[in-house]
Amino acid sequence: MRKLILNLAITLDGFIEGPNGEIDWLVRDPEMDFGDILNEILSDKDAIFYGRVSYDKWGNFQPDKEASSKIKVAYERMHSKQKYVFSRTKTGDDTDAIFINSDIEERVLGIKQQPGKNIWLYGGAEITTTLLNLDLIDEFRLAVHPVIIGSGKPLFQNIRDRHKLKLTDVEGYKSGVILVKYQSETLAT
Amino acid sequence: MRKLILNLAITLDGFIEGPNGEIDWLVRDPEMDFGDILNEILSDKDAIFYGRVSYDKWGNFQPDKEASSKIKVAYERMHSKQKYVFSRTKTGDDTDAIFINSDIEERVLGIKQQPGKNIWLYGGAEITTTLLNLDLIDEFRLAVHPVIIGSGKPLFQNIRDRHKLKLTDVEGYKSGVILVKYQSETLAT
Repeated sequence: MRKLILNLAITLDGFIEGPNGEIDWLVRDPEMDFGDILNEILSDKDAIFYGRVSYDKWGNFQPDKEASSKIKVAYERMHSKQKYVFSRTKTGDDTDAIFINSDIEERVLGIKQQPGKNIWLYGGAEITTTLLNLDLIDEFRLAVHPVIIGSGKPLFQNIRDRHKLKLTDVEGYKSGVILVKYQSETLAT
Repeated sequence: MRKLILNLAITLDGFIEGPNGEIDWLVRDPEMDFGDILNEILSDKDAIFYGRVSYDKWGNFQPDKEASSKIKVAYERMHSKQKYVFSRTKTGDDTDAIFINSDIEERVLGIKQQPGKNIWLYGGAEITTTLLNLDLIDEFRLAVHPVIIGSGKPLFQNIRDRHKLKLTDVEGYKSGVILVKYQSETLAT
């Protein structure tokens, strides 16, 4: 079955954005070019899940003209994936993105059972919470950036149950970023 | 100068206790006996800072009679350290603990300038926030346990400024616990 994998950058204090949506706390690393990161994330995925807010902000993002060709190619690759957008009300736009308005558990299980590569759960926080509470996330691949920002949008909020995870990999980089991978175990009791 | 070092276990979602003070989410690991952990923490420390609530709960904790002799010895060693308790109102108890009620920045800088080993910032969250906001914490040594608990007492709350950290070490254990060490850099602007 395809796995649903949350790939996301967070601060040490667990935020995915500052209070005004800032991501200026992201640490740049010569070892980890953003195009490489994106390519690495996309390498085992052929679909992307977005919450509606994240989709509006990033779902059709185009890099600057000055961006490296590697980043441009990575975004092209990203935009060639099948996108799914979770929204209570919006039913579509002028792209091939599929909007999901209801029956989330059933729809997500259906998509996971389709043949294909894994699915990237892009975020944001609300759809992550919903899918985590439904125990539908199979893996967490977090890039923990070496900064405490104090306030903003937390990745984990309104989580109902305990979730035990299995650590499968952790690696620190010169930039101070830690890449950590967990598999979902069972709901802890 | 002596360093003030936060040594603490947290969940992946950043809590130091569950909503009712639970620490039953702490993962046990044959590689990391709790007596060994305590001894490792104490090895470079000769003083301990507690918030008043944490002190009342853990400051004079005695292990069970059935505990291993290693754990009993580690707690004896812990209780031989000079303790400082941060409280707005309480000025002392029947131990040698020194209670600090005011002038926190001045008092902490004074203690850090005294000769001696490093200082263990035991917690909890409120004194951690105060000392972090005063930029007085020199190192963070966090044991990140592989569990999401959803609610409880967060380690980082009411942090005023951004703090950039320097990753100095990270290691994953079979239990799924990650030990990660950061040095305080500067307040990020």
